[in-house]
Amino acid sequence: MTPFAAHVYAERRRRAAIQAAEAGLDGVLVTPGPDLVYFLGYTPAAVTERLTLLVIGAEDPDAAAVVVPRLEAHDLELGAVGGIEARPWSDGEDEHAVAARLLRDGGRYAISDAAWALHLLGLQRTLRSASFAAFTRALPMLRASKSPEEIARMAAAGAGADAAFREIVRRPFAGRRERDVAADLAELLLAHGHEQVDFTLVCAGENGADPHHEASDRAIREGDMVVLDFGGLADGYGSDTTRTVHVGEPTAAEREVHDVVRAAQQAGVDAVRPGATCEDVDRAARAVIDDAGFGEGFIHRTGHGIGLTTHEPPYMVAGETTPIAPGMCFSVEPGIYLPGRFGVRIEDIVVAFPQGVPGLDDAPEAAVRLNTSPRELLVVA
Amino acid sequence: MTPFAAHVYAERRRRAAIQAAEAGLDGVLVTPGPDLVYFLGYTPAAVTERLTLLVIGAEDPDAAAVVVPRLEAHDLELGAVGGIEARPWSDGEDEHAVAARLLRDGGRYAISDAAWALHLLGLQRTLRSASFAAFTRALPMLRASKSPEEIARMAAAGAGADAAFREIVRRPFAGRRERDVAADLAELLLAHGHEQVDFTLVCAGENGADPHHEASDRAIREGDMVVLDFGGLADGYGSDTTRTVHVGEPTAAEREVHDVVRAAQQAGVDAVRPGATCEDVDRAARAVIDDAGFGEGFIHRTGHGIGLTTHEPPYMVAGETTPIAPGMCFSVEPGIYLPGRFGVRIEDIVVAFPQGVPGLDDAPEAAVRLNTSPRELLVVA
Repeated sequence: MTPFAAHVYAERRRRAAIQAAEAGLDGVLVTPGPDLVYFLGYTPAAVTERLTLLVIGAEDPDAAAVVVPRLEAHDLELGAVGGIEARPWSDGEDEHAVAARLLRDGGRYAISDAAWALHLLGLQRTLRSASFAAFTRALPMLRASKSPEEIARMAAAGAGADAAFREIVRRPFAGRRERDVAADLAELLLAHGHEQVDFTLVCAGENGADPHHEASDRAIREGDMVVLDFGGLADGYGSDTTRTVHVGEPTAAEREVHDVVRAAQQAGVDAVRPGATCEDVDRAARAVIDDAGFGEGFIHRTGHGIGLTTHEPPYMVAGETTPIAPGMCFSVEPGIYLPGRFGVRIEDIVVAFPQGVPGLDDAPEAAVRLNTSPRELLVVA
Repeated sequence: MTPFAAHVYAERRRRAAIQAAEAGLDGVLVTPGPDLVYFLGYTPAAVTERLTLLVIGAEDPDAAAVVVPRLEAHDLELGAVGGIEARPWSDGEDEHAVAARLLRDGGRYAISDAAWALHLLGLQRTLRSASFAAFTRALPMLRASKSPEEIARMAAAGAGADAAFREIVRRPFAGRRERDVAADLAELLLAHGHEQVDFTLVCAGENGADPHHEASDRAIREGDMVVLDFGGLADGYGSDTTRTVHVGEPTAAEREVHDVVRAAQQAGVDAVRPGATCEDVDRAARAVIDDAGFGEGFIHRTGHGIGLTTHEPPYMVAGETTPIAPGMCFSVEPGIYLPGRFGVRIEDIVVAFPQGVPGLDDAPEAAVRLNTSPRELLVVA
């Protein structure tokens, strides 16, 4: 992944400190994974039981420190991010004590969602008066609004996924296995700028009724609806798009379900307006499906944030009352699932109210789709 | 990975319950990763923010339950493991409340090391009177002693890694980049029964002085010591072996360092005797290196347990006073690292006191190496 400039990382740490202070926190504790990539552009070669922990104090984010296994300390290129001190620890030392020295008695800290329980429990044991909250609960929206530089990467990832879709629908479906089409999709994502393929779901006929079906040996046949849901990382940022195609001419009933999902997806995107909340997007998409009588068949939330990870806040789900803010990137992906028959899902990543992103900021009060593959029901061979 | 028979999983749950009760715990909480593979033979397609949690009560391990996202519930083939009830939860539900209903007020539970902080904090918040301990602290040795069936898989993994080594040393080193040799090693591991390559470290000359150097564009040259450390998973179980080779004839000084490491490694293996503790293995290997005057150059622990993961208890490190028990599988891998010059490490996986494993149980009071590649300093071209 292309690193960002040092000032970008410094600015992210400062924003985290401000948000932490506003939330009544003394700082944020960051472990390997997307959070650490966000703040340091760093991923250990392997995530093991050895503790790596970036500590950003709410009061002095320019003097952050990172606890790191001594063996891995030299992999950290702290020069590139500026102002961060390494605190190496060696096998046999109590790494939680090393980390605790950077924290305050009675302090309250946000900690990365995916931090290991082993380490959280170690910190809790070592610093009994401190308290901890999961990052996405304490500071859910810290990574949610993307900068123009990040949005440009998200747009490139989306364009790569769309290019993969354009090619896959020209290839034959009937007679091939779901697994074969999935392998093609993976190859196409890599050919179109992705460095990592995270999922290539190919769900034919009755398998489409399972939103999490992946790809099996089932042969695709004439008459199948086929849900294609695929994505990965391109220059560190995620793509995720879904289209449902039909092998040969669809029936009127199949067309109807697809039309409902398409209208629901449009309604979800249209609901992204200044002042709207995340649950408004879910409600708008769901209303279309409910009104058409398919409410029972829409069994998941309408969307999820995306960025350095495929799933991150904000979630487009009932109860999520966070207002949609400029630069938020998330999926809008309603679906209808008819057990034993087929499923339909249509998914685009959208960015809310983009500004300062060349080519995307014509409508700064609306959502802009980062996926532009056709949303009508395509017929494949 | 080939599943084990249902009674194997049931027996593992029962042993966990017994150990939990002995440790004063009310049960164990298992999240995706090696622990869940151990107890259920199950890995979700993707580990996301959605909670999957197996709860094994200390009092009734035959009535375990697994909290699982509704979308993934059908991926769980509970028939194959017997006696486990699924507790699906849907988006929008409070999954920690669903899990907490399976726990006792005031209960004390072990939880997988790599459980997400998000979920541990969710459980702590939901069930304030409960307390939690990391699996490897509360029940460190639960997975440490392998069954004959597991040891047979470990032995096959080790044999595959040795076969890769036999082939790599016949290929040219001089003039190729570390990265090229690493790619060859990865390919050879896959060719020899591995389904996953976890690491292929190739560390030439001065890079060998960094135990965690991976592989770079540095060209390997005549006169280089080259550390090769590689492994992965074969039928679910880990391999991990290191040999240090020399391109062309080594100097007397290089031979001396290699001899010391080889003697240290032998001493570590010899220290595996009934009644010995893990730190005894570290002490024995370290003494040889200290006595030869290279103590400053041995900057890591002597070994780590291995099984479903590459690093797991028991650790061969000062302070680890756990007695070595029959069936424990761990690495013995001392090294000497001379900054700016070169490094030497020799690593075998050993199994302690194997019984009931055809071909390995001739010396039931000793360690048996699962890697049998030559340990003398091999000269490569």
